[in-house]
Amino acid sequence: MKKRVGVVGATGYTGLELIRLLLRHPNVQLTALTAERYVGQPIWKVFPSVLKEIDIICQPLEVESLAKNCDFIFTALPHKAAMEVIPGFWQRGIKVVDLSADFRLRDPQVYEEWYEKHTAPEFLKYAVYGLPELHREEIKKTSLVANPGCYPTSIILALAPALRHKLVDPHSIIADSKSGVSGAGRSAVLSSLFAEVSENFKAYKVTEHRHTPEIEQELTFLAGKKISLTFTPHLVPMKRGILSTIYATLAQPISEREIYGAYEQFYRNEKFVRLRPGDLLPSTADVWGSNYCDIGFKVDQRNNRLIIISAIDNLVKGASGQAVQNMNLMLGWEESLGLEVIPLYP
Amino acid sequence: MKKRVGVVGATGYTGLELIRLLLRHPNVQLTALTAERYVGQPIWKVFPSVLKEIDIICQPLEVESLAKNCDFIFTALPHKAAMEVIPGFWQRGIKVVDLSADFRLRDPQVYEEWYEKHTAPEFLKYAVYGLPELHREEIKKTSLVANPGCYPTSIILALAPALRHKLVDPHSIIADSKSGVSGAGRSAVLSSLFAEVSENFKAYKVTEHRHTPEIEQELTFLAGKKISLTFTPHLVPMKRGILSTIYATLAQPISEREIYGAYEQFYRNEKFVRLRPGDLLPSTADVWGSNYCDIGFKVDQRNNRLIIISAIDNLVKGASGQAVQNMNLMLGWEESLGLEVIPLYP
Amino acid sequence: MKKRVGVVGATGYTGLELIRLLLRHPNVQLTALTAERYVGQPIWKVFPSVLKEIDIICQPLEVESLAKNCDFIFTALPHKAAMEVIPGFWQRGIKVVDLSADFRLRDPQVYEEWYEKHTAPEFLKYAVYGLPELHREEIKKTSLVANPGCYPTSIILALAPALRHKLVDPHSIIADSKSGVSGAGRSAVLSSLFAEVSENFKAYKVTEHRHTPEIEQELTFLAGKKISLTFTPHLVPMKRGILSTIYATLAQPISEREIYGAYEQFYRNEKFVRLRPGDLLPSTADVWGSNYCDIGFKVDQRNNRLIIISAIDNLVKGASGQAVQNMNLMLGWEESLGLEVIPLYP
Amino acid sequence: MKKRVGVVGATGYTGLELIRLLLRHPNVQLTALTAERYVGQPIWKVFPSVLKEIDIICQPLEVESLAKNCDFIFTALPHKAAMEVIPGFWQRGIKVVDLSADFRLRDPQVYEEWYEKHTAPEFLKYAVYGLPELHREEIKKTSLVANPGCYPTSIILALAPALRHKLVDPHSIIADSKSGVSGAGRSAVLSSLFAEVSENFKAYKVTEHRHTPEIEQELTFLAGKKISLTFTPHLVPMKRGILSTIYATLAQPISEREIYGAYEQFYRNEKFVRLRPGDLLPSTADVWGSNYCDIGFKVDQRNNRLIIISAIDNLVKGASGQAVQNMNLMLGWEESLGLEVIPLYP
Repeated sequence: MKKRVGVVGATGYTGLELIRLLLRHPNVQLTALTAERYVGQPIWKVFPSVLKEIDIICQPLEVESLAKNCDFIFTALPHKAAMEVIPGFWQRGIKVVDLSADFRLRDPQVYEEWYEKHTAPEFLKYAVYGLPELHREEIKKTSLVANPGCYPTSIILALAPALRHKLVDPHSIIADSKSGVSGAGRSAVLSSLFAEVSENFKAYKVTEHRHTPEIEQELTFLAGKKISLTFTPHLVPMKRGILSTIYATLAQPISEREIYGAYEQFYRNEKFVRLRPGDLLPSTADVWGSNYCDIGFKVDQRNNRLIIISAIDNLVKGASGQAVQNMNLMLGWEESLGLEVIPLYP
Repeated sequence: MKKRVGVVGATGYTGLELIRLLLRHPNVQLTALTAERYVGQPIWKVFPSVLKEIDIICQPLEVESLAKNCDFIFTALPHKAAMEVIPGFWQRGIKVVDLSADFRLRDPQVYEEWYEKHTAPEFLKYAVYGLPELHREEIKKTSLVANPGCYPTSIILALAPALRHKLVDPHSIIADSKSGVSGAGRSAVLSSLFAEVSENFKAYKVTEHRHTPEIEQELTFLAGKKISLTFTPHLVPMKRGILSTIYATLAQPISEREIYGAYEQFYRNEKFVRLRPGDLLPSTADVWGSNYCDIGFKVDQRNNRLIIISAIDNLVKGASGQAVQNMNLMLGWEESLGLEVIPLYP
Repeated sequence: MKKRVGVVGATGYTGLELIRLLLRHPNVQLTALTAERYVGQPIWKVFPSVLKEIDIICQPLEVESLAKNCDFIFTALPHKAAMEVIPGFWQRGIKVVDLSADFRLRDPQVYEEWYEKHTAPEFLKYAVYGLPELHREEIKKTSLVANPGCYPTSIILALAPALRHKLVDPHSIIADSKSGVSGAGRSAVLSSLFAEVSENFKAYKVTEHRHTPEIEQELTFLAGKKISLTFTPHLVPMKRGILSTIYATLAQPISEREIYGAYEQFYRNEKFVRLRPGDLLPSTADVWGSNYCDIGFKVDQRNNRLIIISAIDNLVKGASGQAVQNMNLMLGWEESLGLEVIPLYP
Repeated sequence: MKKRVGVVGATGYTGLELIRLLLRHPNVQLTALTAERYVGQPIWKVFPSVLKEIDIICQPLEVESLAKNCDFIFTALPHKAAMEVIPGFWQRGIKVVDLSADFRLRDPQVYEEWYEKHTAPEFLKYAVYGLPELHREEIKKTSLVANPGCYPTSIILALAPALRHKLVDPHSIIADSKSGVSGAGRSAVLSSLFAEVSENFKAYKVTEHRHTPEIEQELTFLAGKKISLTFTPHLVPMKRGILSTIYATLAQPISEREIYGAYEQFYRNEKFVRLRPGDLLPSTADVWGSNYCDIGFKVDQRNNRLIIISAIDNLVKGASGQAVQNMNLMLGWEESLGLEVIPLYP
């Protein structure tokens, strides 16, 4: 009755977030968790937050055995590792949502430029970019979803109505994004230490972050013409949350009310996008723990620019929540199943 | 079919947490929110985190009109304000869970010593101290529950098995508690400013915190003899969470395994208490957003002391979650309805 | 021998920072602190961090008596309050560094647009904008310095060499700034509470922050032509620090090495500006507690934009440290006296 | 004229703090920094906070060459590594302050119980426990100081007057300590990640922390009889600071005023100990960045207990500041040279 679901790479932060969401999903039974470093250990020893909730033991990543015990797989692996195992699931008819970057870029050339040589380019044509608000119908039909990156989700959703309605000059886009530290994953690296991050704010990978081509691919799709943008990520001393402040020159004079109308029309039926009215601009705390993307904006009349601000929880709408949303679509279920979490505030 | 529920004092942090929980409670319909300062405003203007979730307008606190529109009331008011309105609900037959301190102490004399003159002492005999793990059967039968304080919840649950099984000397108890800042409420006071709290740690109200008599009342009940304890609260630079470290001299030599057995027996059927095995001691992040109380301990063999450590989310098990748990009992529902939230980590 | 110095408005965060710096200044003797709310209390009762360091009692703001006991005055008052008392000091020949906005804008019309009616416009001509790196010689000669705002300091210093050397299109400037919470001052307001700020990130006063005209005034001065910019301030969950990320279209193709050369030449003799080499971009923690402004940049070749990043401690180079730097210049002392603090890390 | 000073293990947090303090020490010239992992790199590449302040290149740890270039050495190494090199400095007549635990315990047996086999036990008799407030005269005469641990400093200073004046029962002592994360050092470990620490509070190494025997050694010295205590360390989501809350049963009834008198007499001439009067209890932010130890207390009359609270900056008075204080004594200088830093607040 329930679908048997496995999480490959279960002991990263997006892995845990998948576990949290899937444990409360009415149509799902978690049947397998893989984690090379913790093989043989119950997951609650790694994450005591799920003590008494789940007893599954971490197992090694073996495609054959996973395919037997799972009807659906989430891969929450680093890039490269993902494309090594996903063909195996595909060949066994297992549907997959992949949270890595490996199948997001349609052009293997671009992948090679920003990452490395792609080892399974023949599967790129099957993959659908899993932003339901843009590609819902294709997601419903595919067996392989490339779950979007966290920054791209926050930027693409913020710009989609403006580009579709040709409200802005597509060559003027600058996205200044700020992320909490969980975006760097659960790896023991110096730059993620509390003592390095707390009371600190900085930019990183300026002009060279790997999410750039992914953002440009989707903005190009939206605008119908080639788009190149300036994208600057920053690190905020907080655990979760991304806020993107996006600047673009207005194509013609337009009032905030008209822009609101365009956005309202575009997102009217979207459960997980919330337009913030007037001066009530988004803040990351207002979406904490939820699958919402909040969007607001202001017109800078003095300089003829549109400033769009979006906020998501990078681990939910920016990763695991969106992954579940994609699974729901792929399996023909109500899109919001298991995702109706109200943000925790404060 | 669904019960109509109102929250009095809806714009504090415990008020918002009640709203969050009640909006997802299968048997409840939220029908009224009061907030003097925000009368006429939709609640999502006060807390944009619930945008698109609820449209209720804040109303003034009028007992008569609330009694008409609600079958059940939560009062999330400061002490004193609560005892002024609760008799009104009682007289109209409305069941109430009161989150203030006004009906927690059975002896109005003690209330007067630590707070001020009690203005409705005749209602004290109807009130039940709402710690379900200790008073479940009485809670089921009453119309007025005094919801426990956050510190008391963390300390009483940690000590209950030890006192019941007479494992420790009841005159030796010291509770060193640490709380996140939301415990101070949503009031604009200097000492709760980010710049005052971040990168800071301090004790406050040492020897004179008002939760002391409440803790002693319940420990006395558990031990069957008068108990006085040393209780020291501290402020931690975090939003949510209480961790209590409790020291008591062992009544006789005993192994950690035996103590675990006593605790396990005491809490075997409790959904919201989790015993942490061995060295996996509690931490506040592991209960974040959930109704769990995690308990662990160590024996200090060299000094013949038991060290018990408990962790709760002060806004959930320490306030609004426990309040919903009490409502469930009072209305004859499954105790965990609406409370099956898995802690958010990280 | 030593100059007698008074701080008017001593119990805000910039007031305390002035006290901290002046207590270790070799040529200064602190003689008066005013604070209406704390009259009669020793300053260490307000700020126990200076216990055992200073015994001065807070006094009311009386110009006459201050003029008798002080040779030099810092006014750390809210705007409007400053312009009410500064003429009094001027008339008594007391030199003043004013940390408010009241004398920063040369044009009273502009002041009225962004603030309110100016009540002492005849003094504007005497005031010098106290950014030593731009106006050192005038500062040396004046008796009234308008100490720059924190955001303006971080943005103007970052752009000065680029504008002077005409490296960028002056109409393309966007400044996306992020500030710690102490910038909001020591006032008990909801939006500055720890529970509202921690694990939160947001923009505020988008397109309408009052520092805008001040930034434009100085950029116009640097570029030699009227400049209007888009400026977006954000709130970071940290106590101190401002990081500004500034975008501008390059006037012509230019290498990072050439830009570095232009910046190096401009700031060669500046003690408090540090150019960050190559990929070692600024971060706020690296200037914590010091008077440094760190500046770095990257060229976005793909989009022909220059991205400049600057970091300051908003309470030091962004306020009190710069104020002391100005005092040193006004009194003919070595510019860095009392300011040779190495940033505290971590 | 100036002493040539070297820091062995310069790229940990205590190493950087030594650099920060020594760069402003009037009698010191920094001449060598060792760091195996960063050999050949300028220290400002590791810590950009000291950019423009210092140009020293990290070198390998070679005793011979260090002995040639330094008159005085600080060893900021992990335990075990320290005792391997210190004999080499001793034999070459170089005075050393060792920040590790290797020479703190007088009894090699106890060292072996809590750490491992001691490899240089014959040097223990030369080492002096470097708490100047207790052992000033011996420190002046020795060539090897064992710099105290951070927790021990906060606990021993808090208890010293009470034990010397026999105010408390020495068998009743419980120390509940809370530390910022920099105490765990600059190592890339999972448990120190921002996402693990922020919004989290927990105890660790309960009953088994290695600072226990060090604390007991000094308390025994103070009380003149064997003391065993219960010591529980906790991790606070902040970078710097330790606050210890210490409980002890009063030996006889005594007023807070009398206790204050005893403490005042004991610490009257100590520059770096501040008694906090009355209800103004210590908080870690009030000592941030400084060498102060703040001490306050309350009598719990109801339970006949004394509650002592102390606060230090773990990297200053708890490590590098105290190390410099010891150097000053060993070299016959004014004890506070280079340490007159006012705490940074906020």
